[in-house]
Amino acid sequence: MSASASHPIGIFDSGVGGLTVLRAVQKLLPSESLIYLGDTARVPYGDKSPETVTRYALEDARFLEAHNVKAIVVACNTATAHALETLRDVASVPVLGVVEPGVKAAVAQTKSKKIAVLGTRGTIRSETYQRAILARLPDAKVLALECPLFVPLVEERFQEHPAARLIAQSYIQPILEAQCDTVILGCTHYPILQPLLNDLLGPYIHIVDAAAACAQALKRLLNDSHLLCQSLEAPAPSYYVTDAPEHFQRLASGILSSDMHGVQQVSLLEAALT
Amino acid sequence: MSASASHPIGIFDSGVGGLTVLRAVQKLLPSESLIYLGDTARVPYGDKSPETVTRYALEDARFLEAHNVKAIVVACNTATAHALETLRDVASVPVLGVVEPGVKAAVAQTKSKKIAVLGTRGTIRSETYQRAILARLPDAKVLALECPLFVPLVEERFQEHPAARLIAQSYIQPILEAQCDTVILGCTHYPILQPLLNDLLGPYIHIVDAAAACAQALKRLLNDSHLLCQSLEAPAPSYYVTDAPEHFQRLASGILSSDMHGVQQVSLLEAALT
Repeated sequence: MSASASHPIGIFDSGVGGLTVLRAVQKLLPSESLIYLGDTARVPYGDKSPETVTRYALEDARFLEAHNVKAIVVACNTATAHALETLRDVASVPVLGVVEPGVKAAVAQTKSKKIAVLGTRGTIRSETYQRAILARLPDAKVLALECPLFVPLVEERFQEHPAARLIAQSYIQPILEAQCDTVILGCTHYPILQPLLNDLLGPYIHIVDAAAACAQALKRLLNDSHLLCQSLEAPAPSYYVTDAPEHFQRLASGILSSDMHGVQQVSLLEAALT
Repeated sequence: MSASASHPIGIFDSGVGGLTVLRAVQKLLPSESLIYLGDTARVPYGDKSPETVTRYALEDARFLEAHNVKAIVVACNTATAHALETLRDVASVPVLGVVEPGVKAAVAQTKSKKIAVLGTRGTIRSETYQRAILARLPDAKVLALECPLFVPLVEERFQEHPAARLIAQSYIQPILEAQCDTVILGCTHYPILQPLLNDLLGPYIHIVDAAAACAQALKRLLNDSHLLCQSLEAPAPSYYVTDAPEHFQRLASGILSSDMHGVQQVSLLEAALT
């Protein structure tokens, strides 16, 4: 089945983090129907191996394709880092990751050419960001920092607890020492920590809004493919998760600042076996 | 195939936490062969639903049974809380959890009958500990506290970071207020935090060593079933994980204080389909 402008956009993440991307897409493209999948039965992806994350990402994409999406947004940096190329090889619709848009925005922003990337262990060790930045700006200095405790802190709503400040201080100290002027939040959970990070990094270090950059890239992609939806009003997004919805719903309401209803639990095995 | 004394003991957990139980079993039963399975492709279990955790636990047990174990130790409190009864229904060998032994030791220890339990969200919300304590000591006062950030702090080796102290202070404050005299560490990761917790709780609050209690219960179980191994020397344990071994190996060496070799990655699907 070929994609049509009236079809929804599919967005997936390991859990709730990708909702920061969904929020940015809703803001920029309010006419679009959205389907969100959070693979909460296997969250988090950040520490898992490239092979395992790729297998999970393929199942996530297969599920969204079975729902006739016209494009897939990989709203998870770890899955983008490990699986984007594979997903593009097998998917029948365009697939957009979160790495390239953030890198493009960072390269446009930096003056010192010293760019820091914060991410999960998997994202940082994949060196996807490092390669993408150097491809666009060969004389850049890239500081890539693993921040594995940021996801649990966000998931536990500890972003304003003094412990979050101490952990963030430990993680970002090298950014201050290296005098970077631009920071990419290379994990879709991290925008929740942005007020704290802004405070610790000070006014002269710019934090790239990768979710907004991703939404912009999606708009260009749909426009170029003549797939932008022309309707005036979109229905509410559909939300699917692979574990019981309660925990997701509770976390999600903190990110979207609105109550979320009708989250459905699904099994990815069925989609994988079709 | 019926169990024989020369067969190994199977131990499973979602990740490395169960190694604290393996360590206790090795110490008490040095003649026994041990097989350890860490379901690292789906770690953690603590926040996932009872149904999902039960499905995973059944696959874990199936894998161990396929390796001819004579008994299964569920070295994960969340899996014990959600799945122990189901596992006992379907397994062909005795299945031992970590909840009952810890509760028994706590009930023997307490004088004030005010007992606190620290655990993951799943374990605490299952109310397994609360019910097990009240079954043995009906007039006990049980304070059950969710500590979801303890697992990531241990996994990231932050147990001596000042942030771990702040988070632990937040979590245990109700124990001091309620004047409990006994604390059960209801998650196999938490013994790694015991020096910090001892320091914060002070000398008058006793922390139960649930891993040691579990090893004692296992010894009784094997003895009663005439399944204690009589050999003089056991081979080194076999370790299996469901994701790439590197991260597990790195974390495990911190818990076992020795290098770990020959960790094998396996797929549970094969065992599940047999």
